[in-house]
Amino acid sequence: MANHIIIFLSLLVFTCSFALAFEPSPLQDFCIADSTSSARVNGVVCKDPKLAQANDFFFSGLHLPGNTSNFLGSKGLNSPHTDPRATEILTVLEGTLYVGFVTSNPENRLISKLLQKGDVFVFPIGLVHFQRNVGYGNAVAIAALSSQNPGIITIANAVFGSNPSIPSDVLTKAFQVDKSIVDTLQTKF
Amino acid sequence: MANHIIIFLSLLVFTCSFALAFEPSPLQDFCIADSTSSARVNGVVCKDPKLAQANDFFFSGLHLPGNTSNFLGSKGLNSPHTDPRATEILTVLEGTLYVGFVTSNPENRLISKLLQKGDVFVFPIGLVHFQRNVGYGNAVAIAALSSQNPGIITIANAVFGSNPSIPSDVLTKAFQVDKSIVDTLQTKF
Amino acid sequence: MANHIIIFLSLLVFTCSFALAFEPSPLQDFCIADSTSSARVNGVVCKDPKLAQANDFFFSGLHLPGNTSNFLGSKGLNSPHTDPRATEILTVLEGTLYVGFVTSNPENRLISKLLQKGDVFVFPIGLVHFQRNVGYGNAVAIAALSSQNPGIITIANAVFGSNPSIPSDVLTKAFQVDKSIVDTLQTKF
Amino acid sequence: MANHIIIFLSLLVFTCSFALAFEPSPLQDFCIADSTSSARVNGVVCKDPKLAQANDFFFSGLHLPGNTSNFLGSKGLNSPHTDPRATEILTVLEGTLYVGFVTSNPENRLISKLLQKGDVFVFPIGLVHFQRNVGYGNAVAIAALSSQNPGIITIANAVFGSNPSIPSDVLTKAFQVDKSIVDTLQTKF
Amino acid sequence: MANHIIIFLSLLVFTCSFALAFEPSPLQDFCIADSTSSARVNGVVCKDPKLAQANDFFFSGLHLPGNTSNFLGSKGLNSPHTDPRATEILTVLEGTLYVGFVTSNPENRLISKLLQKGDVFVFPIGLVHFQRNVGYGNAVAIAALSSQNPGIITIANAVFGSNPSIPSDVLTKAFQVDKSIVDTLQTKF
Amino acid sequence: MANHIIIFLSLLVFTCSFALAFEPSPLQDFCIADSTSSARVNGVVCKDPKLAQANDFFFSGLHLPGNTSNFLGSKGLNSPHTDPRATEILTVLEGTLYVGFVTSNPENRLISKLLQKGDVFVFPIGLVHFQRNVGYGNAVAIAALSSQNPGIITIANAVFGSNPSIPSDVLTKAFQVDKSIVDTLQTKF
Repeated sequence: MANHIIIFLSLLVFTCSFALAFEPSPLQDFCIADSTSSARVNGVVCKDPKLAQANDFFFSGLHLPGNTSNFLGSKGLNSPHTDPRATEILTVLEGTLYVGFVTSNPENRLISKLLQKGDVFVFPIGLVHFQRNVGYGNAVAIAALSSQNPGIITIANAVFGSNPSIPSDVLTKAFQVDKSIVDTLQTKF
Repeated sequence: MANHIIIFLSLLVFTCSFALAFEPSPLQDFCIADSTSSARVNGVVCKDPKLAQANDFFFSGLHLPGNTSNFLGSKGLNSPHTDPRATEILTVLEGTLYVGFVTSNPENRLISKLLQKGDVFVFPIGLVHFQRNVGYGNAVAIAALSSQNPGIITIANAVFGSNPSIPSDVLTKAFQVDKSIVDTLQTKF
Repeated sequence: MANHIIIFLSLLVFTCSFALAFEPSPLQDFCIADSTSSARVNGVVCKDPKLAQANDFFFSGLHLPGNTSNFLGSKGLNSPHTDPRATEILTVLEGTLYVGFVTSNPENRLISKLLQKGDVFVFPIGLVHFQRNVGYGNAVAIAALSSQNPGIITIANAVFGSNPSIPSDVLTKAFQVDKSIVDTLQTKF
Repeated sequence: MANHIIIFLSLLVFTCSFALAFEPSPLQDFCIADSTSSARVNGVVCKDPKLAQANDFFFSGLHLPGNTSNFLGSKGLNSPHTDPRATEILTVLEGTLYVGFVTSNPENRLISKLLQKGDVFVFPIGLVHFQRNVGYGNAVAIAALSSQNPGIITIANAVFGSNPSIPSDVLTKAFQVDKSIVDTLQTKF
Repeated sequence: MANHIIIFLSLLVFTCSFALAFEPSPLQDFCIADSTSSARVNGVVCKDPKLAQANDFFFSGLHLPGNTSNFLGSKGLNSPHTDPRATEILTVLEGTLYVGFVTSNPENRLISKLLQKGDVFVFPIGLVHFQRNVGYGNAVAIAALSSQNPGIITIANAVFGSNPSIPSDVLTKAFQVDKSIVDTLQTKF
Repeated sequence: MANHIIIFLSLLVFTCSFALAFEPSPLQDFCIADSTSSARVNGVVCKDPKLAQANDFFFSGLHLPGNTSNFLGSKGLNSPHTDPRATEILTVLEGTLYVGFVTSNPENRLISKLLQKGDVFVFPIGLVHFQRNVGYGNAVAIAALSSQNPGIITIANAVFGSNPSIPSDVLTKAFQVDKSIVDTLQTKF
């Protein structure tokens, strides 16, 4: 499943940037990212619209399976993470997923659901959420995000796998565990 | 295919409104449309977030075929139309579609593509575009739109099927055809 | 009338771009389009504000009549069209205009009005609208648009005059007419 | 002239509010201010779109002269002021105007121009600007503002005519003049 | 330190909401939250501006120390967290703080700094960040946030302390530790 | 006090621009102003995020007193002025300030307050406001502004000290005083 998300994002980020074209008010019919430009604005600058080709609006291969041979049993993202810049709408095409998100402080309420083929679920922007394949076979889903560069923050990697590491005294206090557990967690990422 | 679009929009419009929650800057984790309220802002007002349930973020049935027995050979939208309030990202799950959009004046360039399973195509906000099933069987696609109420303007219906009708002298001049042709077109819608 | 619109847009697009200066939050007193730059963002980049001259905020000639010797009996736009990126406020200075716009699906309601000197009418962003001189003499009006590059999509040109053409089988189905009528329409544009 | 501005603003504020309909992203074809509602959002709430009438988009009487028998020789605004929420585009229909605006600190540069019939000038949002009739007869102009409630802050009234008054020691220091001059100025407003 | 943040947020959320007044384009001089209203938009509706009092723009007590007798040695927030809706600018008034944030995937770079009196640091919106008092005495700082309801997601609480709990199999996989460690962590929150 | 504001703004404008990073929708974790670039967008372009250093998010020296030996008894801003692009939140750290702002036409109401240590006051975007030290010693305050380039328009300088000058006949009429008083005022700035 998750590798579809990855591919999808790639499409939006590198192939076809609509940032300036619909955020907030477009001044052009469209803005195609000029990946050859070194100028950096919010995203990248636009190609000359007159040079636009159909392929600038096109991406293929979303039906190809991705390599999921890793510790998550998935090539992509389903451990708890946030998309700091996008709301996500997930549509399940095959299999069964258990998904959920947690509201912000002080409530920290888990809102979760078991999804089957044809089900759709919305993950609000910025909240910690996860998706887990709880069926017997593969799960396939498509994630639509409300930004072409939503950003991904995998909690485990950001907290225990940053480079350099967050000082262990910060983490032992935050998670109220012995330094040994924090060390264990940090060695994993 | 198109009925999926319809259902999808319905989900966004009536079940779960994120308008105020991510356009432009959210002040809440999420905003669930309170369809019982008569107050009208841009969209509708929000339910009390504390009353949010998983089902407020959930929709099912996207895998069920829709009734396509109509003059378009489709229950939904594929004749030339605009989505005045959204960019559309279309993902083909099954079948073959010929799709395209036309840039604004003075260029009016048609940018089109033949899409197969796994292909994705982007239709910029506000431009006239169409999707056509050119395969032998059904086509299934999912459309993600950048607004939960993108609006749909079917050109033929808006121009020749408005209520009341646009005066025929306006249309004969605009399309440079005899009144008889305009009358013919208007009787269809 | 319509040529005034054209001139007006030209002013906004090419002479004095306020895109970045008030969409969405300005960071400068103003942003004057640097038409000499090849860099393309949403619109164009700004000139150095220190080099701003009064003429950068100035345009003249709006009182000069335009050439209206063409098939529309107008040099400009009054056949059904959309402005995908702007709401339009039209003020009639001379003559009599019949104007209207059509709401989106499923209602497709025509909201129209006969305008005299001193009348003002608003055309909501993205909706199909038209303006027609129904008086005996010239009509003069000024259109203010909520974007300096609102874009114009003339329905007849976009649907029947695109380059390349939209395949006739798409149009015959969409407008439910014989290919001969579609061919007739396509030859006009 | 200025009374046209006044009437124009009134139209936008009280008759037909498009705030939520195009700021920032519309979710409806349009939003007509429901002046009967006591609910206050950013502006007012919308009427049920199904109840929209052509008159909701219409205003008349912009050609009628206003009463200009006051100390400014004008019913409206031409002394130095700011529109805190709108850029203004002024189009001269009759007469001769001397207009200008002052850039922000530290430059405080005056950018001014003599305008004749058919001339257009842009006043950037938030900057102090003025318009003065320097011809022999009446001047008529139309001001288009980029917000339906731009707000008006007449410098003289805000600084010397507020209610209650700004303490004179604040003003004597700010303007570096004797209290007598400040008192004189405050009695005028 | 952190209790100042808490108080600060309270001020912004409950006392004086500027959401609609400057996000995105204000239509009023200001919007004061009407906490008596049950209507919910993005935040709450506005009081009648005519009823505005100086106290609506006022808050006091930011100099009073808060109770910091808790497991964090602080009444407030300094363990790793995100503000999903605001960029934070922290100004140190007293003491010494070690602060940092982690960039999003795939880089997950820790950007950190030791702050002394008079130092200012910016934490970009949505990223995981922390603040730690590493001096011998109290630390006092003021946090300015770019939203009046930035939201706070304490990672430890959201991931290990949600209600109901995130299933431990999701967490054991995500953090690659034994269920016993996950159980330990979950019992803390 | 005011010199803190000056330093604060300098920090935001020249050292670390977040314009594109949170106005309106970020597409990057952050955008650090590239002050070496000559390209001008709304503010300046971004440095390559990979080159970001902690110092790009850091500023120091806010605790150092500024030189206040000038006619205002302050190095900075406290005479009546507007911040055309930002709402200001002022926090008093030491001393006593009398502050206020004036609402727009036609009300022009002064909303003012005496502030002590620990008090906070909000000045709505675009409105004329002032801050005055009415205590016996120094006053120290921190101003947080909702834009990294809020702009400052000192009324006295903009109206009586522009370069070139606003014609005195405009000012005599606007302020209803003799030319001699206007001349006196203009010589001061």
